[in-house]
Amino acid sequence: AAGPGRAMAAWARAVRGLLLDVSGVLYDSGGDGGAPIAGSVEAVRRIKASGLKLRFCTNETQATREKFVKKLQGMGFDISVAEVTAPAPAACRILKERSLRPHLLVHNDLVPEFAEVDKANPNCVVIGDAAENFTYANLNEAFRVLIGLEKPVLISLGRGRYYKETDGLKLDVGAYMKALEYACDVQAEVVGKPAKMFFESALAEMGVPPQQAIMIGDDIVNDVGGAQQCGMRALQVRTGKYRPCDENHPHVKPDAYVNNLAEAVDIILQQL
Amino acid sequence: AAGPGRAMAAWARAVRGLLLDVSGVLYDSGGDGGAPIAGSVEAVRRIKASGLKLRFCTNETQATREKFVKKLQGMGFDISVAEVTAPAPAACRILKERSLRPHLLVHNDLVPEFAEVDKANPNCVVIGDAAENFTYANLNEAFRVLIGLEKPVLISLGRGRYYKETDGLKLDVGAYMKALEYACDVQAEVVGKPAKMFFESALAEMGVPPQQAIMIGDDIVNDVGGAQQCGMRALQVRTGKYRPCDENHPHVKPDAYVNNLAEAVDIILQQL
Repeated sequence: AAGPGRAMAAWARAVRGLLLDVSGVLYDSGGDGGAPIAGSVEAVRRIKASGLKLRFCTNETQATREKFVKKLQGMGFDISVAEVTAPAPAACRILKERSLRPHLLVHNDLVPEFAEVDKANPNCVVIGDAAENFTYANLNEAFRVLIGLEKPVLISLGRGRYYKETDGLKLDVGAYMKALEYACDVQAEVVGKPAKMFFESALAEMGVPPQQAIMIGDDIVNDVGGAQQCGMRALQVRTGKYRPCDENHPHVKPDAYVNNLAEAVDIILQQL
Repeated sequence: AAGPGRAMAAWARAVRGLLLDVSGVLYDSGGDGGAPIAGSVEAVRRIKASGLKLRFCTNETQATREKFVKKLQGMGFDISVAEVTAPAPAACRILKERSLRPHLLVHNDLVPEFAEVDKANPNCVVIGDAAENFTYANLNEAFRVLIGLEKPVLISLGRGRYYKETDGLKLDVGAYMKALEYACDVQAEVVGKPAKMFFESALAEMGVPPQQAIMIGDDIVNDVGGAQQCGMRALQVRTGKYRPCDENHPHVKPDAYVNNLAEAVDIILQQL
């Protein structure tokens, strides 16, 4: 731990807030509900006790925040719905601001997040990680809505390529987003990491400027690259979807590597 | 017809062979099997009677050539399997040349085209217009094969964006190709129009150099653009998937427009 500690010493002293990715940092997901990563429950408690501001920044779109937070609380995490920045509520704000009425291609469990949104006579498509809802018929239906619009608007909740579950790798929302982008010759607007606006709203909710915040995540592009684009420092944990080849990524280099969230919190709290 | 006739006079005299797209030029497809386009049955007969060489060049991958040709014969077309250039047989040649063993994500009715190909322990993925076979489970399975390969090879039978059937627009193979490309960070090798090699093999089978051949199709990019890249002249018919906005395409301009195949044949035969 001397390595990351020394590398971070120079700038970690200024830190006033932390943004934590959830899946792969707090817990590993899976069909059985998943399991906490060793040391992460205690690490979240220590952050809260330290007086640092804290926000959970996730691209999770397979459940409402309520359901998602309940699962994490069940694992022992000190977390509340109000502390979570997630794509669906951010998308709802955008839909309302721009008077967009979405056709939803999302997971059944995410639909309640859009309860307040007018969905009649849709003038855009919102795509999330729909999982089993990514059927041939549903994709054709979303495509027909888009191609029938004079100016197609496609809003994508994240742009992940794939993720791992207990029964194997699954295509993530980004792959289906690309299919619709190509078919309709349109560029999706991504809500969620790595979109700059998404990190900015998480920072605003925390009341901390990017220079005084650190993002901790397992995804080299969506967590680390996205946060750095926003002017934040970013650590990559060697848990979750981390792979050794991430350390040779052609474009993104984290400000430091840590073995896991517990080690990151050790080092950060030592600098305060 | 004075317009296209005059435009074509200068170069149509040199023509020795015609390549015809099938769907949208000979017939309109649909769940009911489709229907011939007015004048096309007679136009094919006139081409054959003229002594011009003729080849049918299709991206059809929802049926074997045998089945496809039978359907067209049933509509009255003078066509045989040996006259058809289609992506699946071209893909089979490539697979054999490069000792590739495919995992197939194709329409059930296309599978017999790959009967002679070793499919055990796959080291590549072949994707066609799988239609109802484009399920969430099948896409994840093809993805896992690809991502598990040291050097992923994805062969796509065409790169169409969408097509129209009697019950509405459907996503074509290109959209699903893009999803897998993105998820695996790989570039698909396209077999079929607009690939240069595909047109070249059709020309070779006809024994006519590109300068003496004319492609007639309804697809501005895959038919017209692809053939022109190959050094051929190309006509766009105003049938099938033709849309008036094709005439303002930013990159591709046909050598002439014709209302339909019958008119194209009228004009070409007048020049001989």
